[in-house]
Order: sequence, then structure tokens, then C-alpha cells
Amino acid sequence: MSTLKMTGPFVRHMNTRDLSANIPYRAGQGIEEVARDLGLDPDDLVKLSSNENPFGPSPKAIEAIEAAAADVHTYPKAAHTDLTAAIADQWGLSPEQVWLTPGGDGLLDYLSRAMLSEGDRVLAPKPGFAYYPMSARYHGAVVESYPLAKENGFAQTAEAILDQYDGQRFVYITTPHNPSGSEMPLDEIETLAEETDTETLIIVDEAYGEFTAEPSARGLLDDRDDIAILRTFSKAYGLAGLRLGYGLIPSEWADAYERINTPFAVNLLACHAGLAALSDDEHVERTVETTRWAREFMHDELNAPTWPSGGNFVLAEVEDGAAVAEAAQKEGVIIRDCASFGLPECIRITCGTEQSTRRAVSTLNEIIGGD
Amino acid sequence: MSTLKMTGPFVRHMNTRDLSANIPYRAGQGIEEVARDLGLDPDDLVKLSSNENPFGPSPKAIEAIEAAAADVHTYPKAAHTDLTAAIADQWGLSPEQVWLTPGGDGLLDYLSRAMLSEGDRVLAPKPGFAYYPMSARYHGAVVESYPLAKENGFAQTAEAILDQYDGQRFVYITTPHNPSGSEMPLDEIETLAEETDTETLIIVDEAYGEFTAEPSARGLLDDRDDIAILRTFSKAYGLAGLRLGYGLIPSEWADAYERINTPFAVNLLACHAGLAALSDDEHVERTVETTRWAREFMHDELNAPTWPSGGNFVLAEVEDGAAVAEAAQKEGVIIRDCASFGLPECIRITCGTEQSTRRAVSTLNEIIGGD
Repeated sequence: MSTLKMTGPFVRHMNTRDLSANIPYRAGQGIEEVARDLGLDPDDLVKLSSNENPFGPSPKAIEAIEAAAADVHTYPKAAHTDLTAAIADQWGLSPEQVWLTPGGDGLLDYLSRAMLSEGDRVLAPKPGFAYYPMSARYHGAVVESYPLAKENGFAQTAEAILDQYDGQRFVYITTPHNPSGSEMPLDEIETLAEETDTETLIIVDEAYGEFTAEPSARGLLDDRDDIAILRTFSKAYGLAGLRLGYGLIPSEWADAYERINTPFAVNLLACHAGLAALSDDEHVERTVETTRWAREFMHDELNAPTWPSGGNFVLAEVEDGAAVAEAAQKEGVIIRDCASFGLPECIRITCGTEQSTRRAVSTLNEIIGGD
Repeated sequence: MSTLKMTGPFVRHMNTRDLSANIPYRAGQGIEEVARDLGLDPDDLVKLSSNENPFGPSPKAIEAIEAAAADVHTYPKAAHTDLTAAIADQWGLSPEQVWLTPGGDGLLDYLSRAMLSEGDRVLAPKPGFAYYPMSARYHGAVVESYPLAKENGFAQTAEAILDQYDGQRFVYITTPHNPSGSEMPLDEIETLAEETDTETLIIVDEAYGEFTAEPSARGLLDDRDDIAILRTFSKAYGLAGLRLGYGLIPSEWADAYERINTPFAVNLLACHAGLAALSDDEHVERTVETTRWAREFMHDELNAPTWPSGGNFVLAEVEDGAAVAEAAQKEGVIIRDCASFGLPECIRITCGTEQSTRRAVSTLNEIIGGD
């Protein structure tokens, strides 16, 4: 049978569904790409644009990866079970309430799968993480937003969110918030959950939870079935490249996991590395302490207004974020301009080591000028 | 604000959407679990139940993992680009036409995202891979099936599929087919694509494509926009644990990828290991040659009817598959009983090394009895 190739204006083609509302995610350039562009050695660059861990992965995680490398021809089963149990133990929850997912993004997808039907509406922060609307749209939902006002220090209150709320299926909260660093107090989260409908799920994204002194929303799970918490190994644990996140889920519907997951949701080396990293308190403590130092240093020394941050990054206002980011990159300092967050006048600087943070601030101050 | 806990029959709760049609996937037990159950050393067990590579991963892939282990705190960007380019080069396609995904399962999800709207129908083989209906249901579709008749040697013809076809959005083809090993000739695939509607996508799952002498459906992509091909690093390349698969996509709609993917679809170590494995011809050739030997050995020596197989496994009829699998497991030989495929009278045995294949056949023959 031969294939008839037709041309002309009236030919029908294979079409995807309407994806026009799906805005592609533009990740910051990788350090290798920038180095290639500039003709520099990656080791001479400082990359503070993706909120990665400047100390690298836990040394125990590296050892675990090396130990398991020869086993990657096998599907991850026992390793998944073991990591789930360890996380459940850490949080005082049952293993069923821990949903391992490919990155925090994966948890957003799994919650969408479990909850969203075509035409459902969700409420996401603006500015906010680009994957909230992406995941919701992928699952047929309509995305609405609530503002976090810069004039108001990006304050997160139940009242401000409820102003925009009218029965959406999901409300996404990010605390500490990316890119502003603002936080939503626990009693405000509880008020929000209380005041919204029974079938509205509050998704509390604590991707940066290790860097704040504020308590996790975990405490609300004992009494509520309308809150799900997102955590990740990408930030404080330094395993961004392994794509390992998880959800803490109310017991009432935690059993939905097996009806919406993929047979092997998380890869084998992520399971082994995650388990090792969980037990490496020294690595996490060093990361968190240095982050807190770097936040204060940037607040004090950067010649630009900054906002208090609970995360491992600081938002600063510099007039033209893209121009500042571009100029810094030429000096080998990679930071994030915030145009994609709707904040073209801002830059976001990840907390680095003491050395890289000092270099970034010094480079930026030369570009910004001022006192 | 306190949380009011209510009980009693009239209380409303958070509900998931209706997931009752979603049947959980039951993977075969991992070797560690079986060893724990039996009180044996995992090294004394032969695991031929998950179609994994009995030679392990490519040694070059192990080296690549070790070399990149210290970089897992970074998001995978350049590594993703490099692997995509290498795969595109291998197949003579543009990089845009290569969709890297978390395992072959991930490609099924990405195609669902790109194409399926709530209420769309898909047509999947029965028996067949459990994730076809799972992925489709996760994305709101209704699953219908076409039979592959055991009496007919599980033959795959366009005519038999078209008998059940009436405009479904997807038709899933598996060639070589899991668990039977049967194959669909290229001209039958082309006929099927030709005879179905313009907007029906034929998904050709070639997860076992390296083990057959039949040509890939890649050749059809130059002239057609209604075929997508699934490939994986889980089988011949021995990287099942890393969750690395990909799609070969018609150029006409390949740009949908950036509108439906996750920011970092595939993990960093999978990218590095995959790139190394691609260049290790020796490992793949050894795997494929041993597989072909093992298929013939099982056809010849097993005291049970078997079906010709293009994959790295053989299906055999043994009366009570569960009983045989259980008895074999007690002897340290783990194989797959096929009740979950709707074939309770069958077992599926993965092609092992020469040693493990001989041991499996000998153990099974003792259980089955006969000449």
C-alpha cells in the first residue's frame, strides 16, 4: 500500500488539542550553555539563577548513587518503599500519606489527575511558579489568579486570597513564595482552608520549607482533609537533577495514589540518593545556615531595595532586570531576571556560598551603581 | 481559629474525581522483596519477571553515572539537549521530533496531554500493556479494546483492528507485543494508518524494538503525520531504573512538546547514562544476541507450548500460571504469571543470561513435568 501525499489548502491534518493557552516554560540557561556562549570555563562562572544548592548534593547521596549505579537495569520497587517509609517516619505520617513524585512538578500533576475534571477552575498566585497553571491546563482546567501585590510586600493573607475566591477546585499557596520570598502564616492558611468550600483543595507548596523558621503546614493534616503539602529534594537536599519530590496527603484520600501514579514514578538513583540525603543532617544544616547568612548579606550590602525572604533567594528591584542580568552574565555571574514572573524591574539572586554570594553582590553593585 | 471536626453520615468530605475505573498497576515483586520473603540472598535468585536486561546496564553508562553523580544538585538542561541531539542523529530526524520522557510511560502521558480531551475514546490491545488504559483514563478518555486472539497466535493485522475501530482518537500497537511476543508487519501498520481517520493517531510501541529483525515504523514518519513511535532505554540498554524513554514524532506537530512537557522531564543521570549507552554497541549486541539464543532455547527446551517472540521474553502455556510461578519462586526463580493480562493459563519468562535461562527452564520443567 502506498502513501498518498496530498498538498494544498483543503487537506486535513493531524491536530493536537488546542494548546494555545499553554505557555512554554523557559528555564534559565544551564551553566554549560552560558560558558559555551561566553567562551569561558564553567568553573569560572557563578550560577545563582535556579535556586540550586551551592554546596552540591550531600556527600552521602553521591556515595549512594555510586553504590547503586550498577543496579540501574532494575525497576525501582524496594527503594521506593524504603524512601517512602523514611519520609513518613520523619513527618509522623503513614507511608500511604507520602506520595513520591518526579520532582515537585510531578506532585502538581498527580494532584491534578486525582482531582481535576475538564472545565474545573483553579486559583494560582501572580506572580508565581509557572508550573501551577501549566499542570492545571494540561489536565483540562481553567486557570484564574490572585495577586500578590508588590506594593504590599507580596503579603499573603487569607483575606486577600478570599477576595478572588469563588469556589475554585484548587488554591495554590507558595510559602516561602517564589520569587518574592514572602511567607503565609499557618493561621492564615488554616483560615483560608476553613473559609473555602469543602471540595476546594489548598495546595501548600513548601519547596523552600527548609530555609524558613516558620512551621510546616504538616500540623494541619491531622485535622483537615483539604490541604496537601508539596516538598522537594531539589533545594536544601541538593538533588534537583534527580527529579525527586513528594506530597504529604490527608489520610482520607491518600489511597488515590495507586490509581493515578505511573508504575515507577521515581527513578532508582533518586530513591537511593534521597534516602541517604535524609540522614545527612550536617549537609542540610550547613546549607540552611549559609543561606540565612547570604540572605542577610544581600539585604545589607546590595545597592538595591530587597524584600525579606524565607527562601534560598532574594528578590531585588533594579529598574531594568533584563539589562542587569545580561550585564552580570558578561561578568560571569548568572542570576534570574524576573520578566517571566511579570516583574521586569526585578532580579532574583539565589543564595550561594559565602564566596559566590560576595562576588555576585560586588558584580551587581558595580552594574547598579549608587552608594 | 479552631478546626471543627465533624462526624456522622451527613458530613461532606474532600473527594477525588471518580477514579473507580482506574485499576492500580501491580508490578512484579522486586528481587529484594522476594529475597526478604524467602530469607535468601538476592544473588541466589534468578529474576526473569520484568523484562529487565540480565547483563545489567552498559559499563559505559555506569561510568557516566559515576562521573555525573556530584552534579545532581543542578537541573538537567545541556544534558537533555545533548541526548536529544544524539537520538535524533541516530534516527535521521530533527531534534524537535525526539520527545524525551520519563520512561515509555511518560511518552504515553505526553501524547495524551497533547491530544486527548475529556470523553475522547482510545483503542488498546487486549491482552496488552496496562499503562495504555491507565494513561488514557488519567486524561479523561474512555478506553475501548481490540482483541489479540490466542487461538490465532496473537496475530496483529490491520483488518482485525479495523473490525473494532470506529473513529477512536488513539490506536495503540505494541510490536513486538507484550506479553505474547507477536509482531505487526510494517505494511499492516501502514494500512491501519491509511484506513483510519486523519485525526486518529497510531501509537506504535517499540519498547522491545531492538530484539526483533523487523524494521522500525520510523520509515513511515517521513510521509505520515498520524504515527508516533515509542522507544525506551529500559530494555536493551539496561536503564529501566533511570526512567528514560522517548517518542519519535511527526514533524507536523512535534513542536507541541514544549507546550505539554514538564520543565525538566528527564533526570540528569538518565541523560548522561543514556548518551553513554547509545554509543556502547558491544553491550547492546551482546544483549540482543543472548536474547535470541534464549528465545530459541526456551522454544526448544521448555515442556510447554510457547509462542514465537520478537521480544526479550517468551510466553508459555502451563495450565495454572499462578501456581507455576509460585512454585518456581520457592526455588528462587522469579517469573511473571499472566493473570493480570487476562491469561491465567500462561507465564511470561524474560530472556536471561545463558546460565539463568538454563536454570529457569530446568526449574520450570521440574514443576510442569512431562517428557
